[in-house]
Amino acid sequence: MAVNLAPAENLLPVPGARVGTACAGIKQTARHDIALFAFAPETQIAGVYTQSHFAAAPVLLARERENASHAWVVNSGNANAATGEPGRGDSAAVCAHAGRLLQLPDTEVQPFSTGVIGERLPVEQMQVALDDAFTSLSEDGWADAAGAIMTTDTVPKGYSSQLELAGQSVTLTGIAKGSGMIKPDMATMLAYMACDAKVAPNVVQELVKNAAAKSFNRITVDGDTSTNDCFMLACTGQAEHALIDSPEHPLYAPLAAAVDALALRLAQALVRDGEGATKFVTVTVKGGRTAEDCLAVAYTIAESPLVKTALFAGDANWGRFCMAIGRAPVAGLDPDRVQLWLDDVQVAADGLMGEDYSEEAGAAVLAQDEFTVLVDLGLGQSEETVWTTDLSYDYVRINAEYRT
Amino acid sequence: MAVNLAPAENLLPVPGARVGTACAGIKQTARHDIALFAFAPETQIAGVYTQSHFAAAPVLLARERENASHAWVVNSGNANAATGEPGRGDSAAVCAHAGRLLQLPDTEVQPFSTGVIGERLPVEQMQVALDDAFTSLSEDGWADAAGAIMTTDTVPKGYSSQLELAGQSVTLTGIAKGSGMIKPDMATMLAYMACDAKVAPNVVQELVKNAAAKSFNRITVDGDTSTNDCFMLACTGQAEHALIDSPEHPLYAPLAAAVDALALRLAQALVRDGEGATKFVTVTVKGGRTAEDCLAVAYTIAESPLVKTALFAGDANWGRFCMAIGRAPVAGLDPDRVQLWLDDVQVAADGLMGEDYSEEAGAAVLAQDEFTVLVDLGLGQSEETVWTTDLSYDYVRINAEYRT
Repeated sequence: MAVNLAPAENLLPVPGARVGTACAGIKQTARHDIALFAFAPETQIAGVYTQSHFAAAPVLLARERENASHAWVVNSGNANAATGEPGRGDSAAVCAHAGRLLQLPDTEVQPFSTGVIGERLPVEQMQVALDDAFTSLSEDGWADAAGAIMTTDTVPKGYSSQLELAGQSVTLTGIAKGSGMIKPDMATMLAYMACDAKVAPNVVQELVKNAAAKSFNRITVDGDTSTNDCFMLACTGQAEHALIDSPEHPLYAPLAAAVDALALRLAQALVRDGEGATKFVTVTVKGGRTAEDCLAVAYTIAESPLVKTALFAGDANWGRFCMAIGRAPVAGLDPDRVQLWLDDVQVAADGLMGEDYSEEAGAAVLAQDEFTVLVDLGLGQSEETVWTTDLSYDYVRINAEYRT
Repeated sequence: MAVNLAPAENLLPVPGARVGTACAGIKQTARHDIALFAFAPETQIAGVYTQSHFAAAPVLLARERENASHAWVVNSGNANAATGEPGRGDSAAVCAHAGRLLQLPDTEVQPFSTGVIGERLPVEQMQVALDDAFTSLSEDGWADAAGAIMTTDTVPKGYSSQLELAGQSVTLTGIAKGSGMIKPDMATMLAYMACDAKVAPNVVQELVKNAAAKSFNRITVDGDTSTNDCFMLACTGQAEHALIDSPEHPLYAPLAAAVDALALRLAQALVRDGEGATKFVTVTVKGGRTAEDCLAVAYTIAESPLVKTALFAGDANWGRFCMAIGRAPVAGLDPDRVQLWLDDVQVAADGLMGEDYSEEAGAAVLAQDEFTVLVDLGLGQSEETVWTTDLSYDYVRINAEYRT
């Protein structure tokens, strides 16, 4: 089902980051569902976390432990969310076991979980599986981890890239899982990225926050925000360039560009593998007075069930778009200035369907797997883009059958 | 498909309100699609109108003409929205023709349209049809009008009630159409109500505004707001009680209660006939600090695709609800105080799945056609209720095929 998305492959090892996986049998017994990440002592880690009031137990612990972290334990199949104090104890017990294996204080291990909400973690099964995952730790474990963290994802998602920093080759590898409850309000899924750049703690924070803002916080599948979302970046410090100690350091900009680019590819991969997705849709709104206005219009379009079903049907219906733009929570929108394009086909000008517009031309755009919806509000200079999917029968099927 | 909804029948005539219908062949040729309402000279009319930036041409005209209005022309099949100045001219031309027939200035005729957005009205066809509708004007025309205003509705929707005001019998009759783009931001559909009470103009305003707030503004099917929504109330003044000249008048309260009750039945009928609906769901949120907080949580639940697909599947999954509550835009929500019931089955207490909760008990509630989701936030005294549907395959089918 994924739209133009090749499975994760050829993920490059990142010096200083070892990855192991195993089968804990949390929800299924035939696949790996736990991943252990172990980082070199020099590593600096930062993340962004869900904004949900019901942030899950592992998220609360992971957030606390970010500064000291040297390891991650990730499981799929059970989110350990809405499990209260006992849930926090469960995540702590899993981390403590990983810490014993890695000879780290348990406060240096961050837990992450994804899957069914409201059920207790099978702690002992996970501890036994961690023994296997520990044995399998290797710098080549990323592709297996991309599989182990999946829930309703149809393919594992991961990318690597390399850049030169002051003559030193630096490698970035990242993996992510979606694929429902995808809504931008902080990173909205699980994503893990590591690179061997040498970066000060405050700079890792900066890198991860800025990358999330332009990638994971710009995608929406269904407007629903998970209790467990996290996007983590580990910089292992194994590369031999000078320490990047501030955003003004000359090596910061090229590293940030590489982190941003990889985060965007991962975020877009989540949309391509969105539940039931048959289309990958870029929604750009320009001509707004502010970035907030552009985003409000873009999200209203991207999350409107009537627009999304029209995209699924390939129905190039100006009415659906103007309905969505019309209800966007934006002050002072002037319908008589609104223009709409589907790729390079102009659908509406000055708030009216274009005189030369033919629905055949619009339908030809929507018949593609990927296309852009471009709105010009005609009011200002701001422009923002979000990425989304259509709403198909399969979205309903997947979510109606999720636990059966 | 409608959930526990009998077709409109036995609609009572309202003295001073005549209704006629005809076939203008706007989208289909085999059904009536235009309705003409003609009111006695004593009639006072008020309405509430869509808040969409793209409010349709007829809405703009209807809003202008409210104070002087003595007639309504309503068509289905074409919304005359996003049609700009030419669209306003089309609606004006239709009204002018109705005015000639009724011997009224055209500024005393209010136009209303529903259907496809972005296409011009077939004015001449509608004028010819209005001749037929004029001929058929009768106090018994309400049931035919309930059919004529339908779009994707599966059944005509209408109710009547009677009350005594100072010993005089007063009759209320109302009709409404849905059934997609149903989202509460002002009345979110077309609804027409008349009664023969004798009411001052400012009081009609008060009646319609208050009734909308507690009925049409408390329902949601898909979170999408139409460009054409209107809820109109005509008080024909034919009953022989004293003029109700203020909300403090002793006859105001009983009349308002009757108007509110009829509006609520009509609003709930729209939800029962919501696109693809298989469930009629009452979402009540209590224990909020403010009404706004309660509504924010209630709408987040009612519009969450993941909750709605779980309701469709009958999956009594605490996780879906806690995800939705968790992302509600409410400050200071405390997950450890949240309680959730499905009818009288307690699912969660203090933010955790109840120890005695069995999913079988929850599933038995969701297996019903109608049930209540009750959330207690444990923070204050406010309580609000909204009504919604599930999200089914048929919602996708109806909206993917709407124009084909």
